[in-house]
Amino acid sequence: MVGVVGGGQLARMMAGPALELGITLRVLARDAGESAAQVVPGVDLGDETDLEALRRFAKTCDVLTFDHEHVPTEHLRVLEAEGIVVRPSAAALVHAQDKAVMRERLTALGIPCPRWRLVASEAELTAFGAQVGWPLVLKTPRGGYDGKGVLLAADVAAAADWLARDEPLLAEERVDFERELAVLVARSPHGQAAVWPVVETVQVDGVCREVLAPAAVTEEHAVAAQQAALRIAEGLDVHGVLAVEMFDTTGGVLVNELAMRPHNSGHWTIEGARTSQFEQHLRAVLDLPLGDTRMSARQVAMSNVLGCDIEDMYGGYLHCLAHDPGIRIHMYGKAVRPGRKVGHVTALGDDAEDVRARAVHAAAFLRGDIDG
Amino acid sequence: MVGVVGGGQLARMMAGPALELGITLRVLARDAGESAAQVVPGVDLGDETDLEALRRFAKTCDVLTFDHEHVPTEHLRVLEAEGIVVRPSAAALVHAQDKAVMRERLTALGIPCPRWRLVASEAELTAFGAQVGWPLVLKTPRGGYDGKGVLLAADVAAAADWLARDEPLLAEERVDFERELAVLVARSPHGQAAVWPVVETVQVDGVCREVLAPAAVTEEHAVAAQQAALRIAEGLDVHGVLAVEMFDTTGGVLVNELAMRPHNSGHWTIEGARTSQFEQHLRAVLDLPLGDTRMSARQVAMSNVLGCDIEDMYGGYLHCLAHDPGIRIHMYGKAVRPGRKVGHVTALGDDAEDVRARAVHAAAFLRGDIDG
Repeated sequence: MVGVVGGGQLARMMAGPALELGITLRVLARDAGESAAQVVPGVDLGDETDLEALRRFAKTCDVLTFDHEHVPTEHLRVLEAEGIVVRPSAAALVHAQDKAVMRERLTALGIPCPRWRLVASEAELTAFGAQVGWPLVLKTPRGGYDGKGVLLAADVAAAADWLARDEPLLAEERVDFERELAVLVARSPHGQAAVWPVVETVQVDGVCREVLAPAAVTEEHAVAAQQAALRIAEGLDVHGVLAVEMFDTTGGVLVNELAMRPHNSGHWTIEGARTSQFEQHLRAVLDLPLGDTRMSARQVAMSNVLGCDIEDMYGGYLHCLAHDPGIRIHMYGKAVRPGRKVGHVTALGDDAEDVRARAVHAAAFLRGDIDG
Repeated sequence: MVGVVGGGQLARMMAGPALELGITLRVLARDAGESAAQVVPGVDLGDETDLEALRRFAKTCDVLTFDHEHVPTEHLRVLEAEGIVVRPSAAALVHAQDKAVMRERLTALGIPCPRWRLVASEAELTAFGAQVGWPLVLKTPRGGYDGKGVLLAADVAAAADWLARDEPLLAEERVDFERELAVLVARSPHGQAAVWPVVETVQVDGVCREVLAPAAVTEEHAVAAQQAALRIAEGLDVHGVLAVEMFDTTGGVLVNELAMRPHNSGHWTIEGARTSQFEQHLRAVLDLPLGDTRMSARQVAMSNVLGCDIEDMYGGYLHCLAHDPGIRIHMYGKAVRPGRKVGHVTALGDDAEDVRARAVHAAAFLRGDIDG
């Protein structure tokens, strides 16, 4: 009995592998209409920031895991003290919740990161800017996602509003990168770890649009990226799936962000790898042996379907299925709102450009960007 | 909104593709503990032989389809007359429910079948035996499955008990075959049809034990088998997945049985084909364009996990996952009873003997037949 906190699409996409493996999934959702709550019989309605709701839910499960990182760390520490099995643990998860804690820990582990500093004043920011050069990337340590909580500041003046807040900010050098990469690794409590091939993520305005597997990187950088992800998983004692977002630079790979759950950069694994990230996450948090992470096609491309002003995507859906019998459409059952991730499509094949074009076409068509 | 009559493993395995495609699945089950009822939120409890329960369920769905063939044909005709969309239709489904009707129709369509005759008396059986030779295969036209309702009779005396029943029997010549084959085809109401590669089924005591894809048949027989399945699907106006079980003989392929739903001989398609039979069935009954049926690996083997005296298969489960990271285990959530199909395993690879050995090993281990 695996309990997932959060009823979004990540929990939803765990439901398929769970039922195939004979694992019972339960979901804590805020609303019965949420993506995962629509498809799983065992749904508790409650707010994940409410300790009592969390505890009540956790007691019906053998292990607690997550669809997102927005559960208060202190609540998880309380539950752990009460004997609830939480995977990843509060001590690990905090590195995906707090970017300042993450940077400190990765630096201590010797993992290559962009140069960074915690800044609480204009003077500190000025000093850091003088050291690494402007513009700087400013981040709120907690609560950001999909480009929210991130500011590219050209100078101190541009950061004034953010500095006026009460909390320190994470300032990072802006990295000149060739491409953005993601490495997905799963690790189980008894220490087995399995890493998928390195992928390229194509981001627009901080939101992932496409994922290309495998990434067109040098063998040396691919191995370095996988090794860094494995070292992080071990160093932070992660249980479950860990996604490590990285910058690929001429000088090597640098870690950008962490997520400790199935991740958008791994949706391609549903059809594109022998074991999907959703199945692997379940196996890892249950301490079951992990599955084969090899690709099931030479090239795989995933494109997100972002909500637009068309509420009904059914016409596009029909077109895409008819146009390309090999296209794999995934819809999350979410109400369509502009910019919201409401689904994704995956294409498999032998040629990188071909699979990318097919995935991008289908996603654009579903979104209504193409007329014929 | 697709309504599936029956809560067995076939309905259960439709749930994963349904949630990925954003299709809502409802299930009519007899008991809340049934395989599919465990994993689908929209479950109606009721008996599929009760017209009122069937009607109440059907009215909550856009299309009615099936996990098994045990729904009275006359009930389906009533529902169709009331405007319920039933796929496959009662007129098509009867060919999978009544073997005598099936033989008559296939013969009229010119599909190669074993020689057969409906017999109601010893005299008729004796005459048929004299014509095609003993032993003969006797079948009850309705209600048989997994070897039940089938008798290999050495002579008229051996058939006496069966002949004493009130209904005529289907008598068929016993076919000398090289191997048993199955061809799976999906067909949608607007006439699109898609066929998967021909597979070999390995049967023990009338129960399918293994499925090997693709079958090691001549190109000529493979094409003939696929063409026969496509002609049957069109001839019977099937909507949804049709499984055609065949005998591969030196003289060509002969049709043995039909099933109009996802079928045990197609479980390998979950990982082994670009589109699984469960997804394709949903697409077909919703009249959506069909997906790519090509294999996703060179060789695929599926082995059924049959219940044994070990109630808890968890130890074997752990071993299998650890022993072979590429093995795909599917458990149906069914109580373990001797001989009952409680799950299946699939192996993918490049070598036919290797994938078969891996699948057979895992299934045997889960069953408790192997100790170390």
